[in-house]
Order: sequence, then structure tokens, then C-alpha cells
Amino acid sequence: MSSNPGRRLNIDNINPHVRSAKYAVRGELAVKSEEYRAALHNGATDLPFNQVISANIGNPQQLDQKPITFFRQVLSILENPTLLEKSDVLVNHLGYKPDVLERAKKLLAAVGSVGAYSASNGVPAIRQSIADFLERRDGFPANQADVYLSAGASSGVNTLLHVICANEKSGILVPIPQYPLYTASLSLLNAACVPYLLDEQKNWGTDLATIKAAHEKAEAEGVDVRAIVIINPGNPTGASLAEEDIRAVIDFAREKRLVILADEVYQTNVFVGEFISFKRMLRQMQQEQPGAYDAVELASLHSVSKGMVGECGHRGGYFELVNFDPQVQAEIYKFVSIMLCAPVIGQCLVELMVNPPRAGEPSHELYAREYDAIFGGLRERAAALHRAFEQMEGVQCGPPQGSMYLFPTIDLPRRAAEAAAAEGRTPDEFYCMRLLEATGVCVVPGSGFGQKEGTLHFRTTFLAPGTEWVGSIVKFHAEFMDKYR
Amino acid sequence: MSSNPGRRLNIDNINPHVRSAKYAVRGELAVKSEEYRAALHNGATDLPFNQVISANIGNPQQLDQKPITFFRQVLSILENPTLLEKSDVLVNHLGYKPDVLERAKKLLAAVGSVGAYSASNGVPAIRQSIADFLERRDGFPANQADVYLSAGASSGVNTLLHVICANEKSGILVPIPQYPLYTASLSLLNAACVPYLLDEQKNWGTDLATIKAAHEKAEAEGVDVRAIVIINPGNPTGASLAEEDIRAVIDFAREKRLVILADEVYQTNVFVGEFISFKRMLRQMQQEQPGAYDAVELASLHSVSKGMVGECGHRGGYFELVNFDPQVQAEIYKFVSIMLCAPVIGQCLVELMVNPPRAGEPSHELYAREYDAIFGGLRERAAALHRAFEQMEGVQCGPPQGSMYLFPTIDLPRRAAEAAAAEGRTPDEFYCMRLLEATGVCVVPGSGFGQKEGTLHFRTTFLAPGTEWVGSIVKFHAEFMDKYR
Repeated sequence: MSSNPGRRLNIDNINPHVRSAKYAVRGELAVKSEEYRAALHNGATDLPFNQVISANIGNPQQLDQKPITFFRQVLSILENPTLLEKSDVLVNHLGYKPDVLERAKKLLAAVGSVGAYSASNGVPAIRQSIADFLERRDGFPANQADVYLSAGASSGVNTLLHVICANEKSGILVPIPQYPLYTASLSLLNAACVPYLLDEQKNWGTDLATIKAAHEKAEAEGVDVRAIVIINPGNPTGASLAEEDIRAVIDFAREKRLVILADEVYQTNVFVGEFISFKRMLRQMQQEQPGAYDAVELASLHSVSKGMVGECGHRGGYFELVNFDPQVQAEIYKFVSIMLCAPVIGQCLVELMVNPPRAGEPSHELYAREYDAIFGGLRERAAALHRAFEQMEGVQCGPPQGSMYLFPTIDLPRRAAEAAAAEGRTPDEFYCMRLLEATGVCVVPGSGFGQKEGTLHFRTTFLAPGTEWVGSIVKFHAEFMDKYR
Repeated sequence: MSSNPGRRLNIDNINPHVRSAKYAVRGELAVKSEEYRAALHNGATDLPFNQVISANIGNPQQLDQKPITFFRQVLSILENPTLLEKSDVLVNHLGYKPDVLERAKKLLAAVGSVGAYSASNGVPAIRQSIADFLERRDGFPANQADVYLSAGASSGVNTLLHVICANEKSGILVPIPQYPLYTASLSLLNAACVPYLLDEQKNWGTDLATIKAAHEKAEAEGVDVRAIVIINPGNPTGASLAEEDIRAVIDFAREKRLVILADEVYQTNVFVGEFISFKRMLRQMQQEQPGAYDAVELASLHSVSKGMVGECGHRGGYFELVNFDPQVQAEIYKFVSIMLCAPVIGQCLVELMVNPPRAGEPSHELYAREYDAIFGGLRERAAALHRAFEQMEGVQCGPPQGSMYLFPTIDLPRRAAEAAAAEGRTPDEFYCMRLLEATGVCVVPGSGFGQKEGTLHFRTTFLAPGTEWVGSIVKFHAEFMDKYR
């Protein structure tokens, strides 16, 4: 394994912060699952399964989720605007409704060509459409100048953390379990991740006492805690925060002068309770107590990758800044301009997501039918998977609440932990690797998201169609438990 | 201008490396030009011009360059694959040729849905198609596992610099004048930019003695110089390196153990001489002297944004790694996986760029006609602009050689420099601001790219159609010179 000494770069002299970053969602298990997939594609018959199920990543259209027709019809015209010269063919032979053509024309008027760079923060008319959506959603004004289009929410998080973290003392409160983008990005920036545990007993909700303790400990250690990340609804857990929890976080952020980073990409994936945006609560608290919350800075993120849109591959997203200093916003603008702009077709998809066909418009009926079917399908699959987990020995899992994931606790026999240690793996990694090898189902060990000391979990999406794969997990689990009991 | 003290973030406490980064291509002049554009759009009649010409950025489709029909027809099907169910309509009523349908089917088979995340390094079949292109182009094998799709070349540069730079002592040789992505990215990383001047007298070619001197000086100052950036053909200058220059750089990189970062995004924008890839020369030298060059690491970058493709808004690109350590490549893979994947529709466009219709295929004739017309148009406009510069007092500009830019030297009167200083601007910034205010033409001051002490330049694209804007520059220049003479 020693590096060729003649080369300039080797594993020991590259950026140590890149080396130390961890990103389990696409780590060893994911790579191995792709090898299996390729082997099956090339005709392998020596594997104990005949398909790979990528339950490791929320990637709906890789499984069977179909894109929403209205969105893709509009995008097809944006890619080939000359189609508009044949409107009659589109309408009479291809089933494009008039509102598809209208929307395409409107977007083309706004962007020019989707092959041109846009303004660094996004196409102005698309920012305005997002601001209009935010006003409708929250009941408070939104300004297009505070909206920044991004290449998915990930790129938005990268931007915000880059600007907020000034040096290795800068710390960010991050929920555990969490989506590993946050820890990986903080590793790259060489800033401090300040973890706070979510409460599994309370459906993975936030517990303010825990957050306070984490903050206090970090400050005592000399960390300059600058922001708090809230993933709402949660990833990997799907929990939606109640109004009083959001208020408590905002009050805490005000008291400790923390920027709130609200990752709200699952805002429409809610089965239990209701999604309440941080923006709405913050503005409401500003209204209730004039002046008291005007310095609480909030950045909220959204994406086309999740929800019923599921268009991950298009890398579309945005963030809105609330109560930020204009000079800081100017630096954020400069930062995003270095990478020029977010993909323009992805920006257009953001516009379609926030401004879908409305009741009475020609495409509305099909849109609503497709949207509801995706939502219902996700809920059904989540319930089926949850029922399976309830039958499994040593597995505990709260009822599905939202997002695209379940995150069960697994209680493994001592001998399994010993076998894992012999392989240099944590017990949950060991379990997930054996699951992949036996069934072709790829999930992510809980250690990839962080978990409370002494507990073990895995995260699985509930996106894959059918029930066969769920059955194969149940069967594997029983055999695994028998083997290591 | 003082910050609200209640906020957590202000200009003085955010990441100082973000604050210090400079990116003039989208800086003050660009922002002001967008304000003018918005004012004209809203009916302003008090400006001395009636259109804004964005000659500050190589953004062909914002001006009049039309996308290539074959590319966009395929993309329209990728966005709406149900169109394939109506192949007869596409062929008989919309003019789609059979090879458009075939290519769309092939790409859909490879990607599944363009709305799904791909592998982090890109769709395997697209990487293979790029490798095939590289083999055809260079006459040497290429391996798809060494190809990484990226969101434009900028994102590839960001990845490579992140991995190469280990700490603030790490240095990268960067040509001056340069595309400011390099200096801005190095600022963000808090790594050292080691500038080396290109030689204006030799058509902005590389001068090895200058590179050696810059390297020696930096090493003497304790900088750990790790890589050399070569932009070939050059930006902002368009110069193509001759074979002997490329060989000299490779020999120097071998001697000093430098990674070569070959930014080859203008490889088809060549009017004078021929484009020779660094990969081809390196492999040739490896063949000529077996063993001698096997440790010379090369990363070469390409993009759909430039050339006759001009699809900047799609954010497609790739880089190929040559002679890299496999462990380092694994870290690069992990780094790109944190941002999940490059936009999938942009990846597909890369495939179309490297594998366009061939002679005899149904779409070839139109493709070739469009391609040649764009190339010819660029050359004509470059020549017209160059002729205008030749008439202007105090302006010197070598003949157009390639890329999308001219970079004339301007010799301004002393009184202009004094007026600039009074405004707190450099003379070239002052000149470019007055040009924008008088004509609506937005160019970039030479200081945005770096220029030799005591010289002044500006960079302009030659993408804008028509000659009116060129005339307005000539007229402005004469008046400016008269005013400050």
C-alpha cells in the first residue's frame, strides 16, 4: 500500500482535512454495491441476489419514482425552444397542455437560454417566484434579493459554512444523528463540529437542555460557537418540530447569538404533524415582540431533490437569508460568483417546484394526481417497512414521520460485536456489510450519521418498490441473529 | 457602513479568506452593468446607450450564439423520455433525425433518469465515452476510472486545489494574466499563489526562465510549490502552446516534482497554430524515455461552456487524472461525493460534446454546418475587434489567436491615472467604469487577471454580434483620451 515515492502527491501529504472528512452515504458499502450492480449487469450468476437495492441514499428516480409530467414537459421545451414553433404538434400530438407552453415561454423570456450563465445568485425572475412562494407559505414578505439559487441544498450548505466559519475555533452545533454533509464540510473547513444528540425517546426531537449542554461544553473548551444546524423535518429520522420547539431554538439562538441554519429540504415529506418553517416562526416572533428578534440571523435551505419532486440529478436548490448584514450578503454573493452560477435548468426546476400548476389550470389535475400518488406510495412503503422492523428480533423503530428514511435501533449479540472487531469494523458496519452481501440491499450504518454511545442503528430509505427486498432483510436478520446468538 | 452589532456575523468576523478573495469577472462592473440592464428593461431613457453588452464574461448564449441543434434535441428527450413513445411525431413533424432518438435512448439506458443522482464521479458510460474521445484525440489509451465529471471546469479546479493544497505553505504556480478562479480559489484555501508572468511580446506564451525564477523565489521564501497551472489555449489571451513549450513545462514539472494542472477548456477555440494536449505530450515522452516520466502527475480539464458548444448554463465538465496515486484518487472521489454528483443533464451534454454526430450520420450535416458557422463567426468578430483596436490611440493588441477574448494593452495619459487615484481606483478600473457608463459595454480591467507592473489592459470577449458596440468603444476611447490628455 506504500505510495510511489516519485509522485508529488500521496495519501500522507495531501490536504489532511480532505483525508479526515468522512462521508458514509457514498462510502465503502456504496462502492461495493455498485460493484455488485456492475457484476449483475455483466451477467454474474454467483451472487445470492439478482438485484441491488440502493436504500443508502434518497434517490427516488433511481428506484421507481417517475418525474412529474408538467415539470419535464416544460424542461423539454427549455432545452429545445424551437419546439415552440410547432405548438400545434406539441398540443395535438404530444399531449402538452397550453399552460406547459406558457410556462416555458415565460421561463425562456426570463433566462434567455438555459445554456447561458445566469446572474451568480440565480435568474432574477426565478428568485422573485421563490420569494412569492415563501410569502404564500409563511404569510410574511420575502425579498428576491435575499434568495440565492444553489446546485442542490448541499452547495448552499457549503457556501454558508464557508462564510460563517472564520478559523479552527469556529464551531457549529450539528444534530446527531445528522446528514453527514455537515460533519464532512466542517472537516474540510477545519472548523469545529459541536454535536448535540436528538432524543430517540421523543421521536428524535430536539431537546433544548441537550443543546444547551453541548453549547456550554464547547464554549468552555474555547470553541466560538457561531451557528446551529436544524434539520426539519429530520434526516435521518423524519421528525417534524412542533411550534414550541422551533420557538425554543429561536430563543436560544437569540440568547447565544447563533445563526440558525434550517435545512428544510423535507418540508413536504411529512406524514405526522405539520411542517412549520423557521422563517414563519421567526417573523411571527419579530411581530410579537418588535425589535427583540431583529438580529437573529436565519438561513433556510430547500431543494428539488426531495419531496414529491425527487429531481436529485438536476442539482437545484436555494437558500433564503433572513436578518443578515448586507455586507455579509455581499461576501456570500462574491463566494457563489466564483463558481459562476447554479445549473440553469435546475434553477428552472426550482421555479416549477415552488410554482406548480394551480387548480383550474390545464395541467393541474394530472399534477395533483401524480403528486398525491407519490406521497401515498411513500407513506405506504414506509408503513410496510416499519411493520417488518416491528417483527424483527432486537430491532426497534418509531413510526414513520416523514422524510424518506427509517432509522431503526438494532440490538446485536455480543458475538456479532466480536466478529466485527476482528474485521476492524464497528458492529453496525459489520451488520450492514453482511446484509449487502446476503441480499443486495445497501443501507448506511448508524455510525455514518452519529449515534449515542452504546447504541446501533442503520438508515434505510423507503423508496424502493415492491416488498421482496423487505422480506429479504427480515430473512437475513433472523439468520444473522441465529448465527451470532 | 457599520454593522448592526446585534448580529452574529459582520464583515469583520466572517471567514477572512472569503473576504480576501477577489473575483473581478463578476465584480463591481458586472453588478453595475446588470443594474443598467434592469433599468433599460424597465424603460429607462436617460442612459447614453440603449443596450448593455456583457463583454466581461465568456457567455456565448447570452449574446447571439445559438445552441447546436443535435445537442438540444437529444436533451429535450432526456428531459421528457415519454417523447420516445411518439417517435413518428418527432421524426415526421419536429425534424428529429433517427440518430437523435438513438442517442437519447442510449443515454437514457446509461443514466436511468436525468433526475437521479449518478455515481459521484459521473455516469460510467459517459466516463467511457470521454475516455474513447481522449484516445481518439491523443492516440494514447485513456481509462474511464481516471475521468471525473464536474459541474463545469470551475468545480474541477476547486476539487483539485482542495486536495493538492495541504496548508498555507502549499503553493501553486499560476500564470499572470490568468483566469481569476485560480487566485480566488487559492485565497479561499489560504494557500499560496505563486504568480509567473506570461510574455506579452511572445503572444503571451510561457517563458520557462520566468517560471523557473518564480519557482525559485517562492521556494526560497519557504513555499512548498506543488503544482503548476497552465491555461492552454490561454485565458485571457488565447495563445496556444507549441510542442516544445509543452515539453519544457513537462520537463520542469518532472524536475521540480510539480503536478501539472492543464486547463484546456479552449481546446477547440484555436485560430492560430494547433492545440496539443498535455496528455498526448506526456504519454509521448513516457514512450520515448520509458520510466522517466511515470511519476509526472497531470490533471487536465475540459468543459461544455466554451468551444462551439458554449453551454455555460448547463455546468458540464470533466477532468482526467494521469499518473496519480490510487490512494489520492480515492480521496478525490470522496471529496466529489460530498457534493453528490455533477448535474446529470450537464454530464449528458459532455457526452454529446465529445461524441458528436459523425460523417454519414443523419444529423452530421447540420451539426457540421452549425459548428463551422460558430467558429467562423468567432474568428470574424475577433478580427473586426482587433482592427478597431489597431486604430485606437495608445492601444496595442496582438492578433487574435484563440479562446474568446482579446486582451489589449492600453496606454493612458497621466491625468487619467490621477483622476483614477482620486476615485480610489486603478487606472484600468477607472477606464473600464467610464467605458461602461458611456457605452453600456462591460469589459474587465486587466488588474482582475493580473498584469505586469506598470502596464494596463482590459479583457473583452469577441462574442457580441454586430459592429455598433465596437464603434462605440472606438468613439469612447477617442473622447476619453481627449479629455485626459
